[in-house]
Amino acid sequence: MCKNHGVSYVEPGKVEVTEIDYPKLALGDRKCEHGVILKIVATNICGSDQHMVRGRTTAEKGLVLGHEITGEVIECGRDVEFIKKGDMVSVPFNIACGRCRNCKAGLTGICLNVNGDRAGAAYGYVDMGGWIGGQAEYVMVPYADFNLLKFPDKDQAMEKILDLTMLSDILPTGFHGAVTAGVTVGSVVYVAGAGPVGLACAASCHLLGAAVVIVGDLNEERLAHARSFGCETINLTNGIPVEEQIAMIVGIPEVDCFVDCVGFEASGHGANAGKEMPAVVLNQAMAITRAGGQIGIPGLYVTEDPGAKDEAAKQGSLKIRFGLGWAKSHSFHTGQTPVMKYHKQLMNAILFDKIDIAKAVNVEVISLQDAPRGYEEFDSGVAKKFVIDPHGIITS
Amino acid sequence: MCKNHGVSYVEPGKVEVTEIDYPKLALGDRKCEHGVILKIVATNICGSDQHMVRGRTTAEKGLVLGHEITGEVIECGRDVEFIKKGDMVSVPFNIACGRCRNCKAGLTGICLNVNGDRAGAAYGYVDMGGWIGGQAEYVMVPYADFNLLKFPDKDQAMEKILDLTMLSDILPTGFHGAVTAGVTVGSVVYVAGAGPVGLACAASCHLLGAAVVIVGDLNEERLAHARSFGCETINLTNGIPVEEQIAMIVGIPEVDCFVDCVGFEASGHGANAGKEMPAVVLNQAMAITRAGGQIGIPGLYVTEDPGAKDEAAKQGSLKIRFGLGWAKSHSFHTGQTPVMKYHKQLMNAILFDKIDIAKAVNVEVISLQDAPRGYEEFDSGVAKKFVIDPHGIITS
Amino acid sequence: MCKNHGVSYVEPGKVEVTEIDYPKLALGDRKCEHGVILKIVATNICGSDQHMVRGRTTAEKGLVLGHEITGEVIECGRDVEFIKKGDMVSVPFNIACGRCRNCKAGLTGICLNVNGDRAGAAYGYVDMGGWIGGQAEYVMVPYADFNLLKFPDKDQAMEKILDLTMLSDILPTGFHGAVTAGVTVGSVVYVAGAGPVGLACAASCHLLGAAVVIVGDLNEERLAHARSFGCETINLTNGIPVEEQIAMIVGIPEVDCFVDCVGFEASGHGANAGKEMPAVVLNQAMAITRAGGQIGIPGLYVTEDPGAKDEAAKQGSLKIRFGLGWAKSHSFHTGQTPVMKYHKQLMNAILFDKIDIAKAVNVEVISLQDAPRGYEEFDSGVAKKFVIDPHGIITS
Amino acid sequence: MCKNHGVSYVEPGKVEVTEIDYPKLALGDRKCEHGVILKIVATNICGSDQHMVRGRTTAEKGLVLGHEITGEVIECGRDVEFIKKGDMVSVPFNIACGRCRNCKAGLTGICLNVNGDRAGAAYGYVDMGGWIGGQAEYVMVPYADFNLLKFPDKDQAMEKILDLTMLSDILPTGFHGAVTAGVTVGSVVYVAGAGPVGLACAASCHLLGAAVVIVGDLNEERLAHARSFGCETINLTNGIPVEEQIAMIVGIPEVDCFVDCVGFEASGHGANAGKEMPAVVLNQAMAITRAGGQIGIPGLYVTEDPGAKDEAAKQGSLKIRFGLGWAKSHSFHTGQTPVMKYHKQLMNAILFDKIDIAKAVNVEVISLQDAPRGYEEFDSGVAKKFVIDPHGIITS
Repeated sequence: MCKNHGVSYVEPGKVEVTEIDYPKLALGDRKCEHGVILKIVATNICGSDQHMVRGRTTAEKGLVLGHEITGEVIECGRDVEFIKKGDMVSVPFNIACGRCRNCKAGLTGICLNVNGDRAGAAYGYVDMGGWIGGQAEYVMVPYADFNLLKFPDKDQAMEKILDLTMLSDILPTGFHGAVTAGVTVGSVVYVAGAGPVGLACAASCHLLGAAVVIVGDLNEERLAHARSFGCETINLTNGIPVEEQIAMIVGIPEVDCFVDCVGFEASGHGANAGKEMPAVVLNQAMAITRAGGQIGIPGLYVTEDPGAKDEAAKQGSLKIRFGLGWAKSHSFHTGQTPVMKYHKQLMNAILFDKIDIAKAVNVEVISLQDAPRGYEEFDSGVAKKFVIDPHGIITS
Repeated sequence: MCKNHGVSYVEPGKVEVTEIDYPKLALGDRKCEHGVILKIVATNICGSDQHMVRGRTTAEKGLVLGHEITGEVIECGRDVEFIKKGDMVSVPFNIACGRCRNCKAGLTGICLNVNGDRAGAAYGYVDMGGWIGGQAEYVMVPYADFNLLKFPDKDQAMEKILDLTMLSDILPTGFHGAVTAGVTVGSVVYVAGAGPVGLACAASCHLLGAAVVIVGDLNEERLAHARSFGCETINLTNGIPVEEQIAMIVGIPEVDCFVDCVGFEASGHGANAGKEMPAVVLNQAMAITRAGGQIGIPGLYVTEDPGAKDEAAKQGSLKIRFGLGWAKSHSFHTGQTPVMKYHKQLMNAILFDKIDIAKAVNVEVISLQDAPRGYEEFDSGVAKKFVIDPHGIITS
Repeated sequence: MCKNHGVSYVEPGKVEVTEIDYPKLALGDRKCEHGVILKIVATNICGSDQHMVRGRTTAEKGLVLGHEITGEVIECGRDVEFIKKGDMVSVPFNIACGRCRNCKAGLTGICLNVNGDRAGAAYGYVDMGGWIGGQAEYVMVPYADFNLLKFPDKDQAMEKILDLTMLSDILPTGFHGAVTAGVTVGSVVYVAGAGPVGLACAASCHLLGAAVVIVGDLNEERLAHARSFGCETINLTNGIPVEEQIAMIVGIPEVDCFVDCVGFEASGHGANAGKEMPAVVLNQAMAITRAGGQIGIPGLYVTEDPGAKDEAAKQGSLKIRFGLGWAKSHSFHTGQTPVMKYHKQLMNAILFDKIDIAKAVNVEVISLQDAPRGYEEFDSGVAKKFVIDPHGIITS
Repeated sequence: MCKNHGVSYVEPGKVEVTEIDYPKLALGDRKCEHGVILKIVATNICGSDQHMVRGRTTAEKGLVLGHEITGEVIECGRDVEFIKKGDMVSVPFNIACGRCRNCKAGLTGICLNVNGDRAGAAYGYVDMGGWIGGQAEYVMVPYADFNLLKFPDKDQAMEKILDLTMLSDILPTGFHGAVTAGVTVGSVVYVAGAGPVGLACAASCHLLGAAVVIVGDLNEERLAHARSFGCETINLTNGIPVEEQIAMIVGIPEVDCFVDCVGFEASGHGANAGKEMPAVVLNQAMAITRAGGQIGIPGLYVTEDPGAKDEAAKQGSLKIRFGLGWAKSHSFHTGQTPVMKYHKQLMNAILFDKIDIAKAVNVEVISLQDAPRGYEEFDSGVAKKFVIDPHGIITS
């Protein structure tokens, strides 16, 4: 029996790498003969992991983290029919059965069969069904025929592995934000947030043919990175109203499309600098999006937030100037991205050199042992995306 | 020169019928050679007129009310090319130029050229461009070739006039709410509000093939009316949680689609009975709509509400449990209905007997002189839709 | 081991009922642990079965017919997780794996994994993957969790079984034709063909809110049946051009939407009466559909037709006035209906009494032994849909 | 009164530049106070002009050619409200009223009010409403507020004029072909034809994020040009079956999307080299497009073709292997491109440097006097797009 090691949550601010169980084709009593065991080739640290590590959730000690997984199939359950041992694959962070009403409609982010408590599940995440995370050497992936995206060629895949590893979450997530915001050829877009999802969204907007992609953030280092691949940027700390800054770029103080890549952990700026303001991005969206525009919201909003400063926010209740959006006929599109809807087309875009996503999000490869440092640095706001190479086989 | 009479706002709680100017092909200095003068055949009192009459807006004394207009063309401006004198027509409540970016995209509810202050205009409404209302004998309709829907046959139109008069606003508005909520063949729908828009929405849901249409309200008389044409109903005052009442009807405590036909003037129920709670319907929407469902919001939300009880609501800021909708991947669709998008197909539905909308909303025809009584009765919550017959030519 | 009996093709014009193998969870060497065994409750004779029985295909003696199947699950393969023994279910005629690119996109009519020769498979059909038909007592259904639609309540299902049995093929097929033709509230539609699919399409158009549904055919008995549920009809043998007949109904000689429920075995009329004219319906579609209209084509067109009279038609090549459609910006939508896309919503429409499909297609229930008579009568053009009751448990 | 000169059709193979009438705000008796007079800055020769000049139509001597027009407004009719004297504008080749059912639905290619004989009109084209062409110094544009696209800045427009002039027809036409073929991020596309529309389509596919754009033609010079901006190419004269050539490029013998930029004047290849085969592209489309793919058909198909070799083709009847498409669930999208649907977003793409369309189609600027040479060269198959500069003001 192989050994396995993974990254576990310990306490607020702390993760550790320890030996963990080698995966079984099961989740507790639930048999998963439709699953496979993967040898993980690349697995990324995600901003949403930070919510747990910062202690903003009810995650318990010992939870194995990691939902951005790419690997090689080393064992197949007996009911796996089309995925084969040796296949190199991308794993969508959403776990989906492929057999329920939502999966059949392509809504794999809210599968009805993989989480006993609510719609939707993910690997290594609190309240998302109890599936074991993949910041590890090995992981089990259920419903493998349905979930996995096979890369056409293994050598080619290893050459582009730092791009392809973004297919498990942030590239589809940024892309979904853009699509649901109505981004298309010629659009003027505002992307709120220059973290990895925001940058992936900005790169997606370019891929979709946007005319102008404006990225707003409080972090100048991240904004500089956005400029490196053709984005306009707005530094929210510079005291100039966002509307004015937009007008300086495109001549009018509004955009066609708005993508919220920040979510509920948003901070205020100007007079509210440093203050946590969970509705600030949504209110800004309505202020700067033109009448008839759409607002895509891939950034996470939670049903309850015990760590919030504000009593209402603790119950997940935000103060939203909804009438402003209504007056402009806005539509708002929320939820976990159904990764499967997009990963094949985005794989093509990578393999045929239409997008340099690893460069756009500024990948740094680290070993599994270095994961705790990766978490720490990422939390400090560096303009980097950490990719863990658990078997030391990525050469780049 | 003909004389003209119309319904004007006087002060909170009071309207009066007085002599008003006969319409000109102009709005102030703005010439409207693209306009026509209509002899009004039917013009309805709308729930949104009540916002002004209740003093919840900055409407000034003398404002001529009325945006639900059906009539006969008696004079055409020189730029009118296809509409002819003698045509019997329905007027969309949205005024639209047909020449701006939004109109070209079908978004006539947010036309960029007909209101100096913001996108979108309407007849007889505060802050909606200053166009004169049509609860009157005569009215001017600009951009007539673009805006007007001609009825194919005048005699047939007079026979169905009480149905056709609903094409100017509430039937398309209810229909738009249903469409944006994703209502289709086989849907289970919850319609919040059993006023005329809610009932028009419920009738639209049936027309769209919904399997079950559940209407919720606090007013038993209105609910009884909803039941008269095949709706299920939920009385929000009966102390049973809405989820449970839904489960009693369809077996599970959730619906596929939710349409908010109430808007910001919503009242609480249960422990909050009688209390104004502007976000109560939106929060209920997220609670009872299934994961992956859509929420259509034709009910009005305002950017500012000086009459609100709550400080935040005065600034149009509502306390919304947004994270709950996010967890269910909900989408939210807001704004004034672009009537033109739907009025022709709905006219067909009326003319070919597919919908009895006058009966569904319980029309009562009144004279122009009786308009003040109509306002008063409507405000009291009767289950009626008042249609003004300014020339006394409707026989029904 | 149970015995099994089924309807087999013998030779042109002849089918017989014989003992056949009891189903296995396999197709030849291919194991189907994802499959279930059904006790068939209802199984219908379909117009497309006639293509084989008339000898227009390369079907071989012994082929067990039947792809319209409803039944009760009596055995589950070990990979079946959500469907349970005892469930009463509808089987889509398309066999689909739920794991390929097309299935994931909802295109279950062209699944890539269930037919070695081309995209798409069906039960009991020549060149459609070799799966055994279901005009029998028992049948095996692969990928059961994905394919099957479970009825919520067994007793309720038996009460409505004659309607629910139409969910396996003709109701979704007629509905898909209507949807792809753009039928919606207020549409004026022409449905070509008053056989069971044409009538199911007409009923679907009503369900979708169409204002006028015109059904055209050469068979007066079938047209009379169409009139029985609110359709207008056109008898193509009466010598009046179709355009004129349409104008007599709706005032203008064109329709918004056209659905071809006939396919390649079309007959000419007027001067061409009795002559097989495989392109006649398509050419008529372009002639009578308005500019900007859509044409839905659920009627079958074949790649090769050895039985055709015309040399070109033998190679599946039709003479189409394509430029006429081009001048009107028509779009053409073809292919096997992906039943799964629609069956749940149509089940709701049946269970909540929104459509009387059994009545619309004039169901006659027959025993398995009577299947040969059913084929014969159906081939003669009676206005009936034959439902086989293989276990004698339907009481109606 | 200014003088005016323009390009007229003389006889098959011959055009001439003569003095023509200075435009009036009228078309015969029809007043056009909604129109403007343009001083033409750029006007292009189009492949569809060739149909007339080759004598394939009933165009009469004296017809002033030209429907690809860009210019400056020098006079406005009295009913023009938003377009102003001095505006630099692009003219969609479709003439549209903005007031009929089709225009309101965005289907400006089939406007019901601008052509007495059928839906749809264009400048300078036989059977398209009699509107005077714009290969001239001046032209009248009706319904100016609706039809014209104003460039935001005149100097910027003159700098990019060779790109912007493609907005009147071929860029939107190529783009529409791509959009209706379902081209999106990651698509593998086959574009039939490497003439200007084919190249504009290929460039549009890149803009839409396609992974691989394969252009097929018989003309090696044009193919070389396609390769210059990142397309793969297939030379149909090289004897290798198209399917094989596709497989050599993408590994499998099929594509996701097919765009027919050739139309009815297609030539055969291989054994049929040099032979006119009007259905060859459509049949190829069905052969190489994968099951579930879409086929966009911006290439012109005519209702009658008196010049065709084949009797059936004279009546516009083509021999199409329709069953092949049906078996693959293909959809087919035809018709004149509604330019207005796309020109604003494509203008943005040009102004923000997202597409180099002038370079992609290899523009050559010529004087009005040189127009006859331009026609001749273009007819010979050079890989060029001729832009006429009637006032000698383009410097490039």
